[in-house]
Amino acid sequence: MSRVYNFSAGPSMLPEWVLKIAADEMLDFRGSGQSVMEMSHRSKDFQAIIDDCEARIRRLLKVPENYKVLFLQGGASTQFAMIPLNLMGEYKKVGLINTGAWSKKAMQELKKYGECALVATSEDKTYTYIPKEYEIPTDIDYFYICENNTIYGTKYKTLPDTKDIPLVADLSSCIMSEPVDVTKYGMIFAGAQKNIGPAGLTVVIIREDLIKEVDNKVPTMLNYNTHANNGSMYNTPPTYAIYVCDLVMTWLEDVVGGLENMKAINEKKAKLLYDFLDQSKLFKGTVVKEDRSLMNVPFVTGDPVLDAKFVKEATEAGLVNLKGHRSVGGMRASIYNAMPYEGVEKLVEFMTQFEKENA
Amino acid sequence: MSRVYNFSAGPSMLPEWVLKIAADEMLDFRGSGQSVMEMSHRSKDFQAIIDDCEARIRRLLKVPENYKVLFLQGGASTQFAMIPLNLMGEYKKVGLINTGAWSKKAMQELKKYGECALVATSEDKTYTYIPKEYEIPTDIDYFYICENNTIYGTKYKTLPDTKDIPLVADLSSCIMSEPVDVTKYGMIFAGAQKNIGPAGLTVVIIREDLIKEVDNKVPTMLNYNTHANNGSMYNTPPTYAIYVCDLVMTWLEDVVGGLENMKAINEKKAKLLYDFLDQSKLFKGTVVKEDRSLMNVPFVTGDPVLDAKFVKEATEAGLVNLKGHRSVGGMRASIYNAMPYEGVEKLVEFMTQFEKENA
Repeated sequence: MSRVYNFSAGPSMLPEWVLKIAADEMLDFRGSGQSVMEMSHRSKDFQAIIDDCEARIRRLLKVPENYKVLFLQGGASTQFAMIPLNLMGEYKKVGLINTGAWSKKAMQELKKYGECALVATSEDKTYTYIPKEYEIPTDIDYFYICENNTIYGTKYKTLPDTKDIPLVADLSSCIMSEPVDVTKYGMIFAGAQKNIGPAGLTVVIIREDLIKEVDNKVPTMLNYNTHANNGSMYNTPPTYAIYVCDLVMTWLEDVVGGLENMKAINEKKAKLLYDFLDQSKLFKGTVVKEDRSLMNVPFVTGDPVLDAKFVKEATEAGLVNLKGHRSVGGMRASIYNAMPYEGVEKLVEFMTQFEKENA
Repeated sequence: MSRVYNFSAGPSMLPEWVLKIAADEMLDFRGSGQSVMEMSHRSKDFQAIIDDCEARIRRLLKVPENYKVLFLQGGASTQFAMIPLNLMGEYKKVGLINTGAWSKKAMQELKKYGECALVATSEDKTYTYIPKEYEIPTDIDYFYICENNTIYGTKYKTLPDTKDIPLVADLSSCIMSEPVDVTKYGMIFAGAQKNIGPAGLTVVIIREDLIKEVDNKVPTMLNYNTHANNGSMYNTPPTYAIYVCDLVMTWLEDVVGGLENMKAINEKKAKLLYDFLDQSKLFKGTVVKEDRSLMNVPFVTGDPVLDAKFVKEATEAGLVNLKGHRSVGGMRASIYNAMPYEGVEKLVEFMTQFEKENA
């Protein structure tokens, strides 16, 4: 077996520690005689798994007691509808900053149900920065951001100061990469497939007072009450994905030692790559320095033919999925929690060698 | 490792053949150096998996070319909203037979969006039979049934003759248990967690002409067009669940030898248990003979104390999850595709012994 370093934007790498346990327990979860995949979601064994997963998420992120942690399906794209259907109220209007494809999709979807006050956008410069000058209106139900932009490689280093207006943030590509102050948000959500588990699970952390009565026409499954009132088991949840998420949370707590440690590791990995980019004569990072993501690092040579050559040769060297998103071009290295430091070292070594050979 | 016989109604047993492959490939899918969980859904490797899964489903069920096969999330409960939101049209009215909890939930949800013509119900006798006398109205957009009732253990042996009106059927607990004539349906759907894979995946098979323009207020993710137009990859699908589903389909085709063989095995398993029940002085099946399910077999002793004793002692003997649903009481043996004949033999042996000891 020869494992590759997988720089995919998501689904992406999982810790080997997690995969080995999942493999070992596949036919018999801890003496139960069953795979977790075969377990009734109403069984004591599975209840213990989902409870442990929630408890670990709460400890890692220091989630206050007045927030619910929900395990849902349908990815961020389902949240794009669920959020306005549940959180729009008095104003039927939402404030939003557009920092790329995912905030734009969220904007398009919420416009089905109300108005969008677009307070700022970085579309003018291909989303290579996070807007900093804007005013937050007061006649809105909530304020929406995508905190880390997977495609463009930007990240908010300071959250918008929304005062009493609930801040709703898509943390799909940065959740659990560093500590966050949950009290600053009304709601956080994340598709699991980047930093916390397999695709098919969405984690929502929502302040209880935001879970309100909704219009009867809202599908039962798109009503936060449905899930909040039933411990995320109104219907069969994605049990195996929750189990793997629990293993990832266990790795974060017991192996990594928590999010402060994870942040230090992520900063070290990102610094190695950004420092290389900053001195390179061939490769260039696409994002302004102060808004660079710790998780997604887009870079280009400026020559599409050379970019393609790089991606091809990197793949042959076991550094896979480095092709950039078509809207940015070039390359993108997604270096999520599970990417080891050695993976980034190998990448920088490879880039150094490639630069020499193609000077 | 000691595996149990798991009679859970779902999630339930998966073939050991499938679990062993999944365990072996967990850290390295066929030389890719990655787990399927870590793979980009846009990669060639994953595209090959989802394509293979669809091709096998099409071969096994002989799905005609004018039907789409979709891989969705959210379970049957999400379909309960998605179906009326997409299939209601001219009449804003749906015909339905109520045969238990799941058809009732479907009815409650569709009433958010239009009218329900309830043409028959077996609620009068705790859903122990399938209604046979009813008229199907002509002023309806589609006709809805739950073909196999997991909780009550009934199954339609003859489909309602809806003529030109599309028949929509929930096959969650009987899909792939025997051949079906897909042309008789407008749409079939099934949560994967009983016969075709892990929880978190819903398979929809829908005639193309039923995928119509929908109201703009329908959430993008609840619009069949979204998924049909993007090969089920508008957003990240539940990749690992699709992979396991592909393994189950491979087992059905290459190990079992197709659905005719699967049906023969299922009939043999069910006959063993029903024959025992029919001669037993202690245990009694709850369903009228002609409507008995091949998959879910509820039975009672008539004495709740004895029922509880049975469930407890069976569990100790490695026959687990035999407790009946609270609305029927007693016991329920779910004997899906993956339950081996030996599991039912062991159960009948245990019941024989229990009957002797508790005569």
